[in-house]
Amino acid sequence: MSSERALPAGLLSALRAAVHPGAVIDDPDRLVAYEADALTASSGLPDAAVLPADRDELIRVVRLLHEARVPFVARGAGTGLAGGAVAQGGVLVCTTRMRRILEVDQVGRTALVEPGVLTDAINAAVGPYGLRYLPDPASAAACTIGGNVATNSGGPHCLKHGVTTDHVTALEIILPDGTPLVVRRGEDGGLDLAGLFTGSEGTLGVISRIRVNLAPLTSQVRTFLALFDSVADAGRAVGQIFEAGVVPVALELVDRETIAVVEASVFAAGLPLDTEAALVVECEGDPEETAEDLEEAERAVLACGAREVRHANDEAERLAIWQARKKAYGALGRLAPDVFVQDAAVPRSALPDLLPRFAEIARRHDLRLASFFHAGDGNVHPNLLFDRRDADQVARVRAAGKEIMSLCVAAGGTITGEHGVGADKVRLMDLVFGSTELQIMRALKAATDRAGLANPGKLLPDAGGSEME
Amino acid sequence: MSSERALPAGLLSALRAAVHPGAVIDDPDRLVAYEADALTASSGLPDAAVLPADRDELIRVVRLLHEARVPFVARGAGTGLAGGAVAQGGVLVCTTRMRRILEVDQVGRTALVEPGVLTDAINAAVGPYGLRYLPDPASAAACTIGGNVATNSGGPHCLKHGVTTDHVTALEIILPDGTPLVVRRGEDGGLDLAGLFTGSEGTLGVISRIRVNLAPLTSQVRTFLALFDSVADAGRAVGQIFEAGVVPVALELVDRETIAVVEASVFAAGLPLDTEAALVVECEGDPEETAEDLEEAERAVLACGAREVRHANDEAERLAIWQARKKAYGALGRLAPDVFVQDAAVPRSALPDLLPRFAEIARRHDLRLASFFHAGDGNVHPNLLFDRRDADQVARVRAAGKEIMSLCVAAGGTITGEHGVGADKVRLMDLVFGSTELQIMRALKAATDRAGLANPGKLLPDAGGSEME
Repeated sequence: MSSERALPAGLLSALRAAVHPGAVIDDPDRLVAYEADALTASSGLPDAAVLPADRDELIRVVRLLHEARVPFVARGAGTGLAGGAVAQGGVLVCTTRMRRILEVDQVGRTALVEPGVLTDAINAAVGPYGLRYLPDPASAAACTIGGNVATNSGGPHCLKHGVTTDHVTALEIILPDGTPLVVRRGEDGGLDLAGLFTGSEGTLGVISRIRVNLAPLTSQVRTFLALFDSVADAGRAVGQIFEAGVVPVALELVDRETIAVVEASVFAAGLPLDTEAALVVECEGDPEETAEDLEEAERAVLACGAREVRHANDEAERLAIWQARKKAYGALGRLAPDVFVQDAAVPRSALPDLLPRFAEIARRHDLRLASFFHAGDGNVHPNLLFDRRDADQVARVRAAGKEIMSLCVAAGGTITGEHGVGADKVRLMDLVFGSTELQIMRALKAATDRAGLANPGKLLPDAGGSEME
Repeated sequence: MSSERALPAGLLSALRAAVHPGAVIDDPDRLVAYEADALTASSGLPDAAVLPADRDELIRVVRLLHEARVPFVARGAGTGLAGGAVAQGGVLVCTTRMRRILEVDQVGRTALVEPGVLTDAINAAVGPYGLRYLPDPASAAACTIGGNVATNSGGPHCLKHGVTTDHVTALEIILPDGTPLVVRRGEDGGLDLAGLFTGSEGTLGVISRIRVNLAPLTSQVRTFLALFDSVADAGRAVGQIFEAGVVPVALELVDRETIAVVEASVFAAGLPLDTEAALVVECEGDPEETAEDLEEAERAVLACGAREVRHANDEAERLAIWQARKKAYGALGRLAPDVFVQDAAVPRSALPDLLPRFAEIARRHDLRLASFFHAGDGNVHPNLLFDRRDADQVARVRAAGKEIMSLCVAAGGTITGEHGVGADKVRLMDLVFGSTELQIMRALKAATDRAGLANPGKLLPDAGGSEME
């Protein structure tokens, strides 16, 4: 698609001089590693990749790219699911070597970290202080906090705790012209720049430092699994739990296809294969309160037709339930070579109506649907299974996907719940946003990225980047 | 300062035709009611005030003002403490008649309200559903939710629950050209416009509808008051409570001057007048957990030198403690005719060092300092007492105020914790923000308010408004 020759003469050597040895990659064989993120349907190759070791190297790199007017894409671990960290030419700026935990402030309950720190590594570092970082993206063992902030990641336990943006207190951003900028959340006075940068998917600059909020380690967690003969009933149960006044810390739905494939894997949890849907309900807090919440939630699921409720009686049983949920994605490989991971958010109350309709759309397009998602948040993942070598299947996946997204938007929802817009959803932005919103967003981007170099073609349709080529 | 004659010919009659009878005020005697907000040090008069009854009237009003290129200031109940809702000429757009609660969604746990709804009225409306709106600005009985969103209000219980921006899920904004725009928080895809509008103090448009998040009514609250002989010790105790792993739902500090004035009022709580500082510590949740947290917190304050701890044994005693805290502002009138309310945020760990230095600055300027504030958040209010008829006192208040703010910024803090920048702090914005940040903020404002009509001269130094005059 593009090659080293597309970069201006002298840029590669200038980049090499700006960073530590071995931090600039332009060998096409090695660049293939950066061809896609976890959404394999979206791919592209950069002309080079640079891996700065610290913020000073990062600043020098961004300055050089700005001087040369070369577009660049910031990338963490590449676990994103929207093609947001894939480059079509230009330079990939990988923050994976910037992985120091710079400070743990026990009184302020915050940690200052570099963007390449793995999300789980934050918890490993602050655990000894009796603290934890609350958002828990399913890929926490592999993804970086920088990527989490860039895409405003969610996770199963974000139902109670809130998503990434709720836990970021300050950011240092390297603006697309190389200027470092420190912005703080919320009540700093002035417009909320930190909120604006969080979730901006690398289109406004590159994150160089992050201060996250920490919370005390939890006292107790209790979990059950409820089995349903009808996915609509499971959807109703989600609403019923909330009406009963319970806020579970996590409330996940797993559908029949997913149960089947998990049961055929090493993570089998012993679920009957004729279960149409299973809900994972987890409550957290003081033992007494948690027990009461769990009872209330159990009454709610039974009132909505759950045929069976299985309590996790110990931590091993709890982990088994979560394994079945968290390893579902990997297990789907048994059914089809490719998964079109879909991500949308809908009002919680729309779930009973929408869930059967997702299945119906998949059937009509002769596709298999495997769903497992954050039901409590109304954050659905109606994934479609396919084989990308079959052009007809690919076309059907695209059509069914757009139909499902349109249905979610029509129900008052939106085209992403946690994965972001990236490259994959750009074509869908006008389903959600009118021309006024898009025009304002473009003006906001122009306010920080006049030259249109930062992650061109992502997030915003027809904005940035293309005019540079 | 300005008069009706400053408005373009025909505008008043066009406005009258656009709204319900009696909704346009231009009688100077009646406009005096809008001369200031709760920060009396900042004043000004609009040429007219308009009070739309609903969003359609509001849209028509903003369109007319845009066509006539007349600057306007949005205003709720006028309880703000930064002069943000004061107009210097132009038109004041008051949302106090837009006070319908449009929807309570029990499953989604949200409420859709108009901006003029009183904050307490939301709780009155959702209480019967077993729900509550969490942020609790001290003026909740008088202030509007629209004003809360515009200034991103805090409150004593925001320590645990988070400030207004954490509880807003969607907004409808009338852009300065009269275009309505619906924006949603967080994970909508695209840039976080709702986050950007929250706390923008009316400089990007006028809020016409707000969807807020609701939480279940709480189970149990437990409160104690700790008395200290040293304000630095009280500051240390704040940090100690957090280090002990407790997250109180509220953690407030009241200083000696404030105790004296409250004890002389009808809200007297029986505190010894030689107490240098008192901490209000409140925990919330399950009875068992709350009791444990309270014990931990008590151990922490005693370890930091508290000379006495008084537990609220029933709801009446708890309310008495809170009365002393919440009515302190009004009681200050006994000490001096005017209060220069100061609002800053500092790292919690800086409190032991800063608190004595605030007192020292006040002493050096021969001023009385009365402090009561959200210590757990590091959100300080080192208020200065004065008489505005005495020019020398006013000058000393300004000088001491700026010194205190600079000290907070130097300690890693900022010039506002919850009241906003308004007109009062504009001159201090460059203490916190560099030219890059201010330039980006101005570009963001220009992206929604090309004509510079929305609340000119507020929030951003040298931006908007003036070029129109």
